[in-house]
This record gives sequence, structure tokens and C-alpha cells, in this order.
Amino acid sequence: MDFAHSARSADLLERVTRFVRAEIEPVEAEHHRELARLDNPWVVLPRVEQLKARARAQGLWNLFLPAESGLSTVEYAPLAEAMGRSLLAPEVFNCNAPDTGNMEVLHLYGSPAQQDRWLRPLLDGTIRSAFCMTEPDVASSDATTMAATAIPDGDEVVLNGTKWFSTGVGHPHCAVAIFMGLTDPTAPRHAQHTMVLVPLDTPGVTVERMLPVFGRHDEPYGHGQVSFTDVRLPLDSVIAGVGRGFEIAQGRLGPGRVHHCMRLVGLAEKALELACVRATGRVAFGKPLADLGGNRERIADARIAIDQARLLVLNAAWKLDTRGLDGARAEVSQIKVAVPSMALSVIDLAIQLHGAAGLSDDFPLAAAYAAARSLRLADGPDEVHRGVVARLELAKYRRESR
Amino acid sequence: MDFAHSARSADLLERVTRFVRAEIEPVEAEHHRELARLDNPWVVLPRVEQLKARARAQGLWNLFLPAESGLSTVEYAPLAEAMGRSLLAPEVFNCNAPDTGNMEVLHLYGSPAQQDRWLRPLLDGTIRSAFCMTEPDVASSDATTMAATAIPDGDEVVLNGTKWFSTGVGHPHCAVAIFMGLTDPTAPRHAQHTMVLVPLDTPGVTVERMLPVFGRHDEPYGHGQVSFTDVRLPLDSVIAGVGRGFEIAQGRLGPGRVHHCMRLVGLAEKALELACVRATGRVAFGKPLADLGGNRERIADARIAIDQARLLVLNAAWKLDTRGLDGARAEVSQIKVAVPSMALSVIDLAIQLHGAAGLSDDFPLAAAYAAARSLRLADGPDEVHRGVVARLELAKYRRESR
Amino acid sequence: MDFAHSARSADLLERVTRFVRAEIEPVEAEHHRELARLDNPWVVLPRVEQLKARARAQGLWNLFLPAESGLSTVEYAPLAEAMGRSLLAPEVFNCNAPDTGNMEVLHLYGSPAQQDRWLRPLLDGTIRSAFCMTEPDVASSDATTMAATAIPDGDEVVLNGTKWFSTGVGHPHCAVAIFMGLTDPTAPRHAQHTMVLVPLDTPGVTVERMLPVFGRHDEPYGHGQVSFTDVRLPLDSVIAGVGRGFEIAQGRLGPGRVHHCMRLVGLAEKALELACVRATGRVAFGKPLADLGGNRERIADARIAIDQARLLVLNAAWKLDTRGLDGARAEVSQIKVAVPSMALSVIDLAIQLHGAAGLSDDFPLAAAYAAARSLRLADGPDEVHRGVVARLELAKYRRESR
Amino acid sequence: MDFAHSARSADLLERVTRFVRAEIEPVEAEHHRELARLDNPWVVLPRVEQLKARARAQGLWNLFLPAESGLSTVEYAPLAEAMGRSLLAPEVFNCNAPDTGNMEVLHLYGSPAQQDRWLRPLLDGTIRSAFCMTEPDVASSDATTMAATAIPDGDEVVLNGTKWFSTGVGHPHCAVAIFMGLTDPTAPRHAQHTMVLVPLDTPGVTVERMLPVFGRHDEPYGHGQVSFTDVRLPLDSVIAGVGRGFEIAQGRLGPGRVHHCMRLVGLAEKALELACVRATGRVAFGKPLADLGGNRERIADARIAIDQARLLVLNAAWKLDTRGLDGARAEVSQIKVAVPSMALSVIDLAIQLHGAAGLSDDFPLAAAYAAARSLRLADGPDEVHRGVVARLELAKYRRESR
Repeated sequence: MDFAHSARSADLLERVTRFVRAEIEPVEAEHHRELARLDNPWVVLPRVEQLKARARAQGLWNLFLPAESGLSTVEYAPLAEAMGRSLLAPEVFNCNAPDTGNMEVLHLYGSPAQQDRWLRPLLDGTIRSAFCMTEPDVASSDATTMAATAIPDGDEVVLNGTKWFSTGVGHPHCAVAIFMGLTDPTAPRHAQHTMVLVPLDTPGVTVERMLPVFGRHDEPYGHGQVSFTDVRLPLDSVIAGVGRGFEIAQGRLGPGRVHHCMRLVGLAEKALELACVRATGRVAFGKPLADLGGNRERIADARIAIDQARLLVLNAAWKLDTRGLDGARAEVSQIKVAVPSMALSVIDLAIQLHGAAGLSDDFPLAAAYAAARSLRLADGPDEVHRGVVARLELAKYRRESR
Repeated sequence: MDFAHSARSADLLERVTRFVRAEIEPVEAEHHRELARLDNPWVVLPRVEQLKARARAQGLWNLFLPAESGLSTVEYAPLAEAMGRSLLAPEVFNCNAPDTGNMEVLHLYGSPAQQDRWLRPLLDGTIRSAFCMTEPDVASSDATTMAATAIPDGDEVVLNGTKWFSTGVGHPHCAVAIFMGLTDPTAPRHAQHTMVLVPLDTPGVTVERMLPVFGRHDEPYGHGQVSFTDVRLPLDSVIAGVGRGFEIAQGRLGPGRVHHCMRLVGLAEKALELACVRATGRVAFGKPLADLGGNRERIADARIAIDQARLLVLNAAWKLDTRGLDGARAEVSQIKVAVPSMALSVIDLAIQLHGAAGLSDDFPLAAAYAAARSLRLADGPDEVHRGVVARLELAKYRRESR
Repeated sequence: MDFAHSARSADLLERVTRFVRAEIEPVEAEHHRELARLDNPWVVLPRVEQLKARARAQGLWNLFLPAESGLSTVEYAPLAEAMGRSLLAPEVFNCNAPDTGNMEVLHLYGSPAQQDRWLRPLLDGTIRSAFCMTEPDVASSDATTMAATAIPDGDEVVLNGTKWFSTGVGHPHCAVAIFMGLTDPTAPRHAQHTMVLVPLDTPGVTVERMLPVFGRHDEPYGHGQVSFTDVRLPLDSVIAGVGRGFEIAQGRLGPGRVHHCMRLVGLAEKALELACVRATGRVAFGKPLADLGGNRERIADARIAIDQARLLVLNAAWKLDTRGLDGARAEVSQIKVAVPSMALSVIDLAIQLHGAAGLSDDFPLAAAYAAARSLRLADGPDEVHRGVVARLELAKYRRESR
Repeated sequence: MDFAHSARSADLLERVTRFVRAEIEPVEAEHHRELARLDNPWVVLPRVEQLKARARAQGLWNLFLPAESGLSTVEYAPLAEAMGRSLLAPEVFNCNAPDTGNMEVLHLYGSPAQQDRWLRPLLDGTIRSAFCMTEPDVASSDATTMAATAIPDGDEVVLNGTKWFSTGVGHPHCAVAIFMGLTDPTAPRHAQHTMVLVPLDTPGVTVERMLPVFGRHDEPYGHGQVSFTDVRLPLDSVIAGVGRGFEIAQGRLGPGRVHHCMRLVGLAEKALELACVRATGRVAFGKPLADLGGNRERIADARIAIDQARLLVLNAAWKLDTRGLDGARAEVSQIKVAVPSMALSVIDLAIQLHGAAGLSDDFPLAAAYAAARSLRLADGPDEVHRGVVARLELAKYRRESR
């Protein structure tokens, strides 16, 4: 294992960290207050585009994509952590989900025409995208239950079905969605699904409603329920080929899960920082909160939990870099189990130390909690990933009778 | 210990339960959707007044107040649990916080004139009230840090300060607040504060903003930040007498904490019910969720946790009935520690079993989580109540050297 | 629910408590030291017989058996708790496992001849007994895997097989074992096994070795591995009838599990008492341990956990009294899951507060830990009881599709 | 961070692992049974000396000591883990506590004469040693409470006091103890104590008794209570100089804690291995245990916990190598908190999966539990190390008012 920074990644880390602390965190609270004051918050505030422009000008742009940044996953990890401190930051660096995953898909599997039309503007940050996979009526943790369909019909492909929790679909710049549907239930288990690029203005595509997550709509991104009714698209909208949806989904989710976990480590660090500031600055019963009851022990446990989680994420990143997705399957599932729960417990501690203020939006903690909670479900619930870890562990043992 | 129901309370339980299940739970989801669709959700939907009228007509009204209902705390406990299944239900039975606590205060400490003016319409459900205690700039877990002031001045009392998380202050019927302020920092520790009845339209009273709790404004009740600037009221607005605020607060919070915990037991039961329905009805990997991984064990643990919590609440209620508030101090703090955490863990399990839907508002789970989470802080954070339990436990032992 | 004491049980509780505190606890440490000094600790120290005689003379004898004591399970519960404070106490009152369970079996299912020969001297405390059920080579949590056999042959029954963790088999007064074996694998699932009374000196019965439990042999009782090789006994040694073993086992284990849990509540109380004495009496860093770090919070949590567990046990006892074993199945499994884990966590806290001394035998904590740990396995592991609770919970719901 | 193996450490790891698996683990159970059969188990079985000779012949000897092995802490870590799989193994490689720590002390602080007399035979494995620090009557977590004294008197030093939990003092080869005592309570806080080398046969040194740890005496090493009564030794028995005891203790405990934690990671791996073998090989209710209830999830959690803990230990080792003891203070305390608890939870899971057998000594699990439990206290209890982590964390923040 070697988690050392290269000179370049160390330099980038220093610059990303400085940018986040100097330019994003100081305006974050006001940014959210401004949005909250709007009658229609489904807009892009000028601040965001200005920040993006500045980040891009400094070369802090698309760092997530090895083909663009030249960074390994291990090198990108601390950058993602630095961005994760703020829910606003990833977009500023054009490193926000689900666009990162979608760009990876287009980079790896897109045709030149698809890359020209969608990847280029996504890399430029001029459009946004969505990923339409989860469905309301089936257990999406089991992809084989998917009900939406993508049926080739001559030189077209026809999409039907309802997707939900399609994140980002509410953004005014959201131009395209990647849709996954069942094509052939008689094909081998992992060759039944197809992924299709769907311009959001295609007839038959309707954003039915925006869904709150833990009470939040996360404007202007949002989580949408989207119906697809006889949506017809040219066959060259299919990514990689009919029946390759499952394969692409696996490829997309691997690094995506690592990125999510990296950002959560940063979010937990931010929460612990707020907790410590509060614990040292707020007085009750004549003492700083830090000196009351079990608060110090909880702060210690939070520090330990974060450091363990970071190391586990680096380990998964290193496995991904050195053994590829297949060789890092257990490690990726490990962090998907461990990191969101760690983050939730650190954020919850920070909330508790802030008292009622911690529940409000005067601090970014309640929003952080919602974000971390959703990651115990998104991209596979804890239980599925525990199952992967256990399966690979038990596979080391032959059945022996005792 | 005797937690048995009287014939009357058994009958009431049967009727309250039936009312909640037949008349409230079926309309609850639509009720919240209707509110969510409104441009201005700070209104009373006709449904609520209709339900209130029906409940009152059936004698299911003001059951929380012994003087009205003739019920002991042990007898009221299962009724509160039945109401707790729905966040909408308590109001229907005129048993919702903070009005219940305020009515108790007025009943116990109010002058006849105060009772005529405020208690009567509160008991009738024609007005609502707020309780203004917590402050933004001090650790409200330590009442001695309170900064707001209530200073007698001739035949008036003058209020200054800022309160927040004043629940219910957004309700269109909210007519009065009970304000607690510091009167004399040189008085004995528990005689420094004064409680004052403040009509919300008094000059100098301004609701500065409504605060979200875990992303929710809980319209039409809301949690307000309220400033009091040179608010002048006749001295007979003072409750019980200048300097008696702390004493009243203690009296108010005892039964209030028991009521909160009772309702949370009901909320946890509702969550477990939803979890079981989902676990038996939703299929993944060819099996009902109940048969996957550790789900059954978690359901068992939830059942055990709920039953333990209910018994602990009944025990506290029984102590309150038989020994009074002073004799039940440890027991009340015990449930304040144990019950919200239990509820959170059961609700969280239910959310996880629902997948992304559990995070949305299609199920009442995310809202339940927010409600339960706030009760780890409201009326004293866990840590303060753990401190009370520990203090009383350790007081049994003389310091012995080993 | 009514957990109130009758006048008689209140009087007994007062007297048992006094006896335990005045006569047993003060000599307990010396008792164990004395045993530890012996080359052969498999003996009965005179102290035990003297204490038994005194307890019996005071009418504090066989209180566990309703037919003898006239006490309901709810009434016996606090007495068992009082005895549970000391690992030595139950025997003094002739209320120790496995004899209690065996006496219940003989009382309920024994023939008059069996009762004369075995129940009478057990009730007199002049002999001891063992229960031979668990086997080394199968998962004893699943009784259907039992390998030992009990085969009728003319007017005899022939036993073969190996049992282990047969507690008490090392005691010099242990005269008889209840053996459970497979008789007819083709019979209905719950009519395949037979229970047989086996005098320990029967040819073919060999105590192969004594097994340590968490490093302890628990002399002079011990946990034995016992082989049965062509052991022939008259057919009237069979209890209740061939094929009724499973039924008897169920009946035996119900109250037995409640008794175990009651005693564990007492053991946890004793551990918390020791913890508080230590926390108030030992000083580090200039403060009593109670005032360091999270110790107070942990003491509060222990108090809450014990009180919840006691109430849950009383609830199970009350169900057992009012609805019988079948009606209390969920409740008995609930306490079997919850109480040992609670006790372990309280004892572990007490150990930690005692530092290295807590690991030694200078305090009864390490022994208490071993006793409580074994009860997460004895009479059914946690996992099996969680399964029972979950099965009964889920049975309330019809499979509904969502 | 760079946790990569050098070619040499990779080779050593392969060879140590092979030795442990091929030569130690297969004989371990029989070894302990043989000891258990002896009337006097305070002896060295020939097997141990034979294994030591073989290990030494293969160059697998004193690998813990950089000066001997040329290995960094990061390089030694996986070797220690491999040894930790068996409680017997560390001695075979001459890498067992407390001798490792004592050798480090002698290496770093011993005079040439002290090194000749004590370090050389310790490195040869011909004698053993003990470390006498903890005392029965004070809170040893706070070194300033130490009551034993080491008073220079002319050209002698005089020792008085009682120590306990002096591990290894029962070993027939134990020849020397390092004693720490208070010299001058008026000196600066960290210059009050002195460490002295005490031949065990010095007049005035008495091993009063051997203390069990969780019911085990761990023969032939043992944990002794040792009294020192007017023990007079030449002043050149003092290590490094009068008043330097605290400094040496800190230096000794740093790497020692890392070694303990490394071994615990190996012990947890061994427990998980046993758990998986059992879970795949034992059948109940018609399925391997692995497929019942939450067992798979628990196995996944154990895998994740072990991997996190190993990474945290490597991180502490790397900090120790690159920043020295002072720069690794937080990291060393982190692992001292996290690793024993992790190991306990994995071992406990393995015990539970083994049923009653897991409590016996037929598997090394109960002994492993005792070993891991004692490490939540030895070398500083969890609470003290949490305090260190919290103090260093909070020191990053200036007190700010909010």
C-alpha cells in the first residue's frame, strides 16, 4: 500500500483546499439563504458560475476524470475530500454527482458523436445531466427487478417506464439523462439491460414531480420522478450497445462510490471542525461544552472514526488503481458500508453539540445529515454491500464439516 | 407497580385508537400533500377543524389534562401512544405540544383572569399558543445562562430579548406566548426568572423568521425566532408571581416530557408497522425483504426496544402519579434519554427498509425522524438528562476510599 | 399489567434481600478464595450447607416452585433478582439452575415414583442434578439435529450419545441427570425425542471431562462432557412418556429463561453498585472517577438499561402468569435476547471502572461476565430468540404488495 | 503515507506466516491441553524451546527490535500481526510482551553493564523479565498517584511498595523485573520517578500471589502481585538515571502499544477465520450458519472493522517511523482505543458462532477474548487514550465565542 501524494497532487490539494476555504465556505451560508428566499429556487445563482469560472481558470476543473486530470484515484481522493467539506463545492470544480459518473460513462463507452454532443459540454460545465435508474415500484437494490424497458425497434429504441430519485433533473441546465431499461429478459442475467442517452426535451419524457429527501428538495438540482412514455430515440442514442447496460452500470458505480465516500470523509471533517469550535466556544454550567460529560470522548471517537474511514477509502482507491474494478470489489463495498454510517455519527454528534441550532439551517449540519443518510441507500443500500463483503469473505473458505 | 387500565381508560383507548386508524391515518398523506401544494401553507385546512369537532363530539378531547379528563398519567399514557402514531393526530384531540404544557401551566398557576382569557379558548381549541424559552446565543440546556429579561416596572413588566425554536408561533390561530425571562440575577438561583403571558400582537413582539428543523418548517405550526423589544405588559400578565419562572418551568416540563415520550412510543410503533408491511410485501433477490440478511433480527430488536421503552414510560408515569414530580425526577430523565434514541433507531430501520422512498415524504418516516431527532434536544438534551440520572444514582453512595 | 407485590412477596423480598446482604455477600469473596486454595475444589464447603440450613429455617426455600411457595412468577421475580446479586446465593435458597428446571419437570411430568425418588431429595437440597441436552457435534440451537438416542427396548430404554456443557455434573452431590435423546426420527417433528432420568452411577455413563466456560470450571458444579454408551434403564425412567421430550423441554425452558433473566438483573444491579462505589471512591487526575470523561453518562445508561430490562422481565413474568407459556412466547424470547446483553454491558462498565482489579477475582465481576456471557448461548442463542420475536411480529402482517 | 513492504519485509512476512501456520497453530491446542493437565503448569514445555530454536535458526528472531532486525515499525507491523494469530507464537520469535518493551528500554537507556547482564540473555531468550508498574491501591491510569518508592541512599537505591499485574513474573525463567517507583514528589511532575532493574531473587522481593485475568492465570507466565520491602540494590541498577522513570515509561509504551495492537489485529483475523470456517461448516435449520439471520452481515462488519483497524495501526506505525513518538502521540492513542474494542467484537462474534464450544478452551476464542479485554486496560485504559486524542484534537481550535 502506498497512499503517498505525488508533488502534483500535493500542489493541487493545497490549491483546492485554499479555494474551498477562501472562496466557497465563507459564502455558503449566504448562498443557501439566498436560494431559500427565492420564490423559484430552481435557478443558477450567478455566484456559482463565477466560482466555476475562477476554479477553471486555476486549473481546478474536472479533476475527477483521469483522462482529463491525469490523476489516479489515490491522488484524487484527498481532493475529493477537500471538496466534500461543502455541499456546494463539488459543482464549482465540475466534480459533482451524478455528472461525474455520467461523464465517466461517456468517456469510457460513448461513441465519438455522443462524446461531441454530451461529454464536451458536460466537461465544460455548460450543461448538467441526470441518471435514471431507480424505480418506485421495485426493489432497486436488485437490478434484475427493473420494470422500465428499452426496446429496439428498427433504427429506433423505445423507452417506457417510471424512474425516480433522478438527481439533478430539476436543474435548469439539465439537458440529458442516462436511462437504463430492460431490453431482453431472456438474455443472460447481465446482458438484459440497455443504457440510452435521452435529451430531456424528448416527447414522452415528463418530470412528474420533485421528491424531497429528508425534507429537502436540494434546489436547484432536485430529485425527480420521471415518466417515459413511448419515448422514441434514434438507435445511436444507445450507449455502447444494446444489452450492455448492466456492465456500464457496474463500471459507473465503482469509482462513483469511491468519490461519494471521499466527499463524505470531507463532510465529516467539516462537521467535526464545527463540533470542536462549538465545544470550545460555547459555555454551559460554567464550562466549555468540551469539558462536560462524555463530549471529549465522543470527539475522540469521531476523530478515530474519520481517520479509519479515510484510510479505508484510500485503500479502496489504491486497489482500484492497482487491480481494477474487479479486484477492488470487496474494498469498494467496504467503504460504501462504513463511510456513510461514520459520517452520520460524526454529523449527529456535531448537531447535538449545537443544540437546536444544529437542527436548523444556520449550520450546514442538518443538510449534511440528509446527504449522508441518502448515501446509505444510493448506489446500493448498506445491506447489499455487506452481502458483497461477506460473500467474498466466505468464498475464501471451503465448506468443512466440524 | 400497577400499569393496569381502568375500564374507562380501556374504553377510551379503544375509541382513540379506532379514531386515529379510521379517520386520521387514512387522510394523513393527502393532508400533507395538500399543504405542500399550497403557496402559503401557514393555514388551517378545513379537515383539521372537522376532525377536531368529531373528536370533541365523541369526548376524545383534552384527555391530557387530569382536571378535565380525570385520567391519571398511567391511564393517559396509552392514549398518548395511540395519538403518537400520527404527527397530525395530537392536535385533533387537542393534545398537542406546546399547548398541552401551556394549558397545564395555566391550570396550575394561572390566575382566574388568565384562565378565562387564555386557558378557556385553549381548552376549546379555538386559539393556539407558543412557549418562548430557548435562546440563540446561550446554551439553553443551562437555564441560568438565559439572557432575555422580564423586568417589573411599576404596574408593568418589560420584556427584552430574542427567543427561538418557539414552536407553533407560525400557526394562524397562535394568540399568546408564554415568555420566560431573567428578572433578578442576584436572587437565589431558582428564583431569578419570571414567566409572562404575551399576546402575540403586543407591540415589540416580532416573529423574525421561521426556522427549519431537519429541513422542515412543519407548517402551519412552525418554529419561530421571536424578538421582544421593550415589550410592555400589565403586571398581571405575570404567571404566579415574579421570580417563579424556574419553578413553573420544572412543573411544566415533567408531564410534558412524559407526553412526548408516550407519543414517540406510538410513532415508533407506526414505523415498525410500516417496516413490517414493507418487509413482508416487497421482494428482492427472490425473497421478501424480511428474509434477507439481518432484517428479521433488526425487526426483533425494534420490537424489543419499543416494548422496553413503553414499560419505562409507564414506570415514569406511575412514579409521577404516585410520588409527584420530585419523586419521579430520575424516571422522567430516564425516559427522556432512552425513548427518543429508541424511536430514532426504529424509524431509521423503517426508512432503510423502504429504500429511497423512506427518505421521501411518500411515507411519514422522514418527518417522524425529524420529530424524534428534535426531542433529543428539546426539553433538555440527552446529556443533561443523563447527568440527572447519574447524579441521583451516585447520590446513593457515600464516598468510600479503596 | 400489574407488577405490584403482594404483602407476602414484599415480606419475602425484604427477608431474602436481608439474608443475601447480611449472610452471603460478606462471605462470598472468602468462599471463592477458599475454594481456589483447595487442591480439589470439587467439594461442598460447610459454609454452604450452613447457609442452606439457615435459609430453609427462615422459610426462604424452594421459592421458585409455585407448588411449594405459592408465588406467581411476578411475585418470584424480585426474589430471584435479589438472589442473583451473588453467584453463590441461588443454591443457598435451593433456587439454582439446573436443579430448578429439573424440579419443575419432575413436578409437572414426573410419576409419583420419580417424584419420590428424585424430586423429594432435590427439594430437600440433599442431592443435585444435571440436564444433558447440548451436544458437541451438532448445532444444539436446532433441537432437530440431536444425535444422541433414547431407544425403548422391551421394558428398558437404551441411551447412547455424547452430551456436553452438562452443568452441575461435577458436584459431589449430583445424583441424577435428565437426558434427552432422539427416539424416532420418523415421528412428527415434535414427538421424536424422549427424556430419561439417569442415575449418574448407571453403567455406561462417563463424565469424560470438565469444560471451562470463559476460563472457569465453576467448581464444585462444573460443566461436563458426558458420554452415554449403551446405558440401559428401566422404561419407567422415561419422563411423561416416550416421544414427549420436546414438549417437556419447551415447558422446562420457559420459566427457566425467566429465572435466568431475573437473576441477571440482580447481577447487573450488583455490578452497577460496585461501579458506583468505585466511581465515587477512587481518585485519578484529582477527581473521583465518576467525574472523569464519560463515566457519569455510562452510569446513567447502565441504570436506564437495568430498569428497562427489569420491566421487560416483569412483563414476561406477568404474561407467563396470565397467558401461559404459549401466550408468553414472544415475551420470553424478548428477555432472553435483551437481558444477557444488558448485563454484559453493565458488568463490562464495572470492570473498566475497576481497572485491572476488575479483571481479577478480587471482585466478582469477571466471574459475573462469564456467567452472563454464557447466557447469550445457553437455553438458545440470541439469534434463535431474535428469530422467534421476529416471526411472531411479522405474523401480524399479511403479505401485501406495494 | 506509504505502507508498502520492502522486499525484505515481504520475505520475512512470508516466512513468519508459514512458520506460524505450519509449526505453531497445529500444536497450539495440544500445547494448552498439556499445560492444563499438569499439576504444576508453571513450567516451560520442551516444545516451546524447540520452536524457539527453529525460529531463531531461520532468522525469525528479535524482529521487533530495529537495532537487531533493521526493520521499521511499518515493516514489523505485518510480522507482528502474523505472530498475533496465536497467543503462543510471539514467544517463539522472542517477540512477546513484556520482554519486548523491557529489551527496548535496555537497548535505549541501559548502561553497557546493564545490557551485558540483562539485555543479552533476553535477546537470546534464555531469561524472561517482568515490568512492575501498576499498583493495587491507586488509579494506575494516573501515574502521578504511584505509591511505591525508589529512594537513593548513598550508593544504593531502596525500593518499597506493592505492584500487581506484573505479567510474566511466574515464568520459571523470569530473572529480572523493571520496577518503577516515586523518588521525589517535589520534583517537576515528569521527573519524580525512577526505574530500577531488580533481580527477582533480591531479598525483600516477594511474589505474593498470582492473579487471574478473566479467570485465567496464563501459566507459565502469570500476572503477579509482588511486594518490595526495603529492597536494596546498588545505585547502578537504576536505568538512565534517578528521576528519569516517567520519560522511559513513555518511550517504552509507545512502540509497545503499537505492537500490542498489531498482534490484536492478527488475533482478530484468526477469530474471523474460525468464525468463517464454523459459519460455512456447521448446519442448523437446514442451512450453514452463514446463511442464517444476520450472520453474514456480522461477518462483513468484522472484515471491515479488521481492515480499518489494520490501516489505523499502519498509520500509527508510519507516524512513529517518520515523526517519532512525540509526533505520533495522537495516532498511538487512537489505535489503543480502537483496536482492542474491534478485536473484542470480532472475537465475540466468533464465540457466538461456535455456541457453547466458543466459551470452552476447545477453541482459542475465550482465551483470546481475555487477552483482548485486558488490553482495554493495560498500558492505559481506553478512557485515558480517548482523553489524549480529544485533547490534541481540541488544541487545534482557539476558544471562540458564538
